Amino acid sequence: MQYFVDLNSDIGESFGAYKLGMDSEIVKYVTSINCACGYHAGDPLIMDATCKAAAENGVEIGAHPGYPDLMGFGRRKIDVKPEEARAYMLYQVGALTAFAKAHGKKLQHMKLHGAFYNTACNDEKLANAVLDAIEEYDKDLILMVLSGSYIAKEGKRRGLKVAQEVFADRGYNEDGTLVNRSLPGAFVKDPKEAIPRVVKMIKENKVTTANGKEIDIVADSICVHGDNPEALEFVKNIREGLKAEGIEIKSLSSFLK
Amino acid sequence: MQYFVDLNSDIGESFGAYKLGMDSEIVKYVTSINCACGYHAGDPLIMDATCKAAAENGVEIGAHPGYPDLMGFGRRKIDVKPEEARAYMLYQVGALTAFAKAHGKKLQHMKLHGAFYNTACNDEKLANAVLDAIEEYDKDLILMVLSGSYIAKEGKRRGLKVAQEVFADRGYNEDGTLVNRSLPGAFVKDPKEAIPRVVKMIKENKVTTANGKEIDIVADSICVHGDNPEALEFVKNIREGLKAEGIEIKSLSSFLK
Amino acid sequence: MQYFVDLNSDIGESFGAYKLGMDSEIVKYVTSINCACGYHAGDPLIMDATCKAAAENGVEIGAHPGYPDLMGFGRRKIDVKPEEARAYMLYQVGALTAFAKAHGKKLQHMKLHGAFYNTACNDEKLANAVLDAIEEYDKDLILMVLSGSYIAKEGKRRGLKVAQEVFADRGYNEDGTLVNRSLPGAFVKDPKEAIPRVVKMIKENKVTTANGKEIDIVADSICVHGDNPEALEFVKNIREGLKAEGIEIKSLSSFLK
Amino acid sequence: MQYFVDLNSDIGESFGAYKLGMDSEIVKYVTSINCACGYHAGDPLIMDATCKAAAENGVEIGAHPGYPDLMGFGRRKIDVKPEEARAYMLYQVGALTAFAKAHGKKLQHMKLHGAFYNTACNDEKLANAVLDAIEEYDKDLILMVLSGSYIAKEGKRRGLKVAQEVFADRGYNEDGTLVNRSLPGAFVKDPKEAIPRVVKMIKENKVTTANGKEIDIVADSICVHGDNPEALEFVKNIREGLKAEGIEIKSLSSFLK
Repeated sequence: MQYFVDLNSDIGESFGAYKLGMDSEIVKYVTSINCACGYHAGDPLIMDATCKAAAENGVEIGAHPGYPDLMGFGRRKIDVKPEEARAYMLYQVGALTAFAKAHGKKLQHMKLHGAFYNTACNDEKLANAVLDAIEEYDKDLILMVLSGSYIAKEGKRRGLKVAQEVFADRGYNEDGTLVNRSLPGAFVKDPKEAIPRVVKMIKENKVTTANGKEIDIVADSICVHGDNPEALEFVKNIREGLKAEGIEIKSLSSFLK
Repeated sequence: MQYFVDLNSDIGESFGAYKLGMDSEIVKYVTSINCACGYHAGDPLIMDATCKAAAENGVEIGAHPGYPDLMGFGRRKIDVKPEEARAYMLYQVGALTAFAKAHGKKLQHMKLHGAFYNTACNDEKLANAVLDAIEEYDKDLILMVLSGSYIAKEGKRRGLKVAQEVFADRGYNEDGTLVNRSLPGAFVKDPKEAIPRVVKMIKENKVTTANGKEIDIVADSICVHGDNPEALEFVKNIREGLKAEGIEIKSLSSFLK
Repeated sequence: MQYFVDLNSDIGESFGAYKLGMDSEIVKYVTSINCACGYHAGDPLIMDATCKAAAENGVEIGAHPGYPDLMGFGRRKIDVKPEEARAYMLYQVGALTAFAKAHGKKLQHMKLHGAFYNTACNDEKLANAVLDAIEEYDKDLILMVLSGSYIAKEGKRRGLKVAQEVFADRGYNEDGTLVNRSLPGAFVKDPKEAIPRVVKMIKENKVTTANGKEIDIVADSICVHGDNPEALEFVKNIREGLKAEGIEIKSLSSFLK
Repeated sequence: MQYFVDLNSDIGESFGAYKLGMDSEIVKYVTSINCACGYHAGDPLIMDATCKAAAENGVEIGAHPGYPDLMGFGRRKIDVKPEEARAYMLYQVGALTAFAKAHGKKLQHMKLHGAFYNTACNDEKLANAVLDAIEEYDKDLILMVLSGSYIAKEGKRRGLKVAQEVFADRGYNEDGTLVNRSLPGAFVKDPKEAIPRVVKMIKENKVTTANGKEIDIVADSICVHGDNPEALEFVKNIREGLKAEGIEIKSLSSFLK
């Protein structure tokens, strides 16, 4: 049995004079990047630089559209209508595609950001608006979503390319959602705990929840962070840990059909 | 001898609750539209609706990128660097492409807006940044610019597809630029005067300037407006006048090589 | 027994090249205006012109802060934290105060806009953040809110100046909230029905709900609109109707203690 | 002879999730702060926190309005009209005043930012628009501007309160403007050179230009930075150097009439 997984990270989150993240480092350790598209973070210069860095490092590019809320970094729920969700997504996906194309790359995937991600993964109306938009726009665009979410199931049912994402450093509830950041069990920060956890997700499709139950999970891609030196160290540890377990790290487009 | 010309209009300039222009009318009388892309006007819902209307009316779609200045409607010069001009253009072109694609259309052309247009047409650094971006992004994308401008000449020299634009309702200076809106001779509002003027541009490649000289001009496309009932009437008159002179009105992509 | 009431209208909602409302007309028929402050509508030039018009017409000025959502016109709920609500309110109130001051006026009141209004009137956390901000900023600033709402009661309990607002053209639910715009009974458009309704609110402090019950209501101010000629006509009718019933129309600051 | 000077620093330049500057440190070493107001940097939460920190440290508060250009950090010239300059200034000054007031402080001064500062200091139309706005708004508001600039002279001629600002770490041209950052002589980074330079400005009203001439200069306030540990160290050195020379460091409002 051959095992493999994609490693993804949200980058390109700087804006104008404001710098965020260690993009030039993290891009060396992942196989896919999710690039902010100007609504919650990122600006055209940053998007251009991010696509360039991805192209130079042989990393696949994904759009990371957020709500139009730079002041709130896209983390606040906005009561958008399904047609607004659709249009905001297309706008940002298109914008990033131009920079990817200018650097000789196609867009591999699309992953929503923050409150947009959280809402669209399980709100049926928003989820379907997003799926409709992908169908109209490009059926080959991979949709990266929370493993086990409504949108994951419905996307697969429609025959779209769906990448199910897991989090190496977050705790899970029984329904497959993440433990709220303010609650105990929200984080798994020790690589000694995180690595076997991720290995189990990949090899057995199981994860143990914060309250000790075992639930099903699919790990097409693992989300990792590059905000600080500790996060980078964590990613390197995960990489080593996965390799030691015979799990190949490669981009979504190389294995998702 | 066969004559033809494209008719273009700036539309999609509404934003959120704000409505501007008679888009659903003007789209019936032109062959190409220039759609605002969210920086100086337009928002994702408007862009989507504009591309839908263009597709339904068999009109070709162009991006109309402006400076990031919604409050100034893109009419104020901003001292952007060439790399900023390049990135702002790609961002907006890409964003619009997504909506065009969702409605089964390719982007035919790109025409800059307002202060961005005015500056890039004759500022060599900005002009070359724009041309570089088109070369990197898509050599088949038609660049619509002021007839006789630096960017028109340099674009052609590079082998790019350049559409030279003329204005049916504006007076010209001897250097081929438009007479400033605040000066006498800025406007040609009477169709009886405007139509023979445009016919001469198309058939003889000449226009008489505000001070009575004759200068060379190339009319691949005529810019018309759809802001109010009078403007619409003017467009209908121009169409009739051109047809009566045996000039066919058709989209850029049908004749520009 | 002497009766009186304030008439208020939301104005200053234009933005840049975009015009909205018939501000120069409606300002002649109301005693208080609520001026948009740039977050959901309005820009500095519009705010300046609006304060100038109010000063010239002897109308009192109020700030009309909204959520930071120009694209959604402030009508979409955003999950802001209480400290964000407080800061967004202060920012906008301060900004408008500068224009009022430049035209020789003090700010009479503050009325939240759209989703901010709806949420803060009955969400206890947001309501208290708003009340705290007024206490810290200026205890003499009148807070205009939905009649009978939580914030109205709590504001009065704290000893703040609270103006309770009613709607001449909207239906009411039993709990004092407005009937949703999409439901039957949402609107009262016939002045023949609206005038006696408003008179009853003022003289008897009662209103009949959409389902026929009578509930208590306090009408310190009546909200009217100036978006179109019909709305203006409605306002003139209301004015005449109130005068005929011996109800004096005067600004909040003249009677609210 | 008694000597004194104000020390000012631009702070409050963070935005949303983006952090900039060491505000909580620099506020301990200056007598006046210039707080960004949301157009080029800063947001309502940051403005609130900045005014709170100023109040707690007994530092005077000034507004630091910029052009509406968050993406360009207000450093790009925008061709605004005088009435736009006036309105943008009032909007931002008002907004900051609300936060100052909520923390028990009055606004001491106003200093324009970046391209707005550079343009308004010597463009007569913009300068007069700014001066008009101050006259209408509050004649007691101190205007902090480049020493020797047109706006400084005209402001004084009008009888307004003008604070002339000098830069401890920048080279000067013969006309009193700063040496462009890209040219040799732009910076004076060694405190051993900077301190006697500043002392001479204060005691003799003279500075030696980059090309060796001596020109007149008035130093009501010295602009210092708090972006990084070196900048902070520089400020501490300046403070010690000035004290050693018998120059008292105190806020503008304590000595400007």
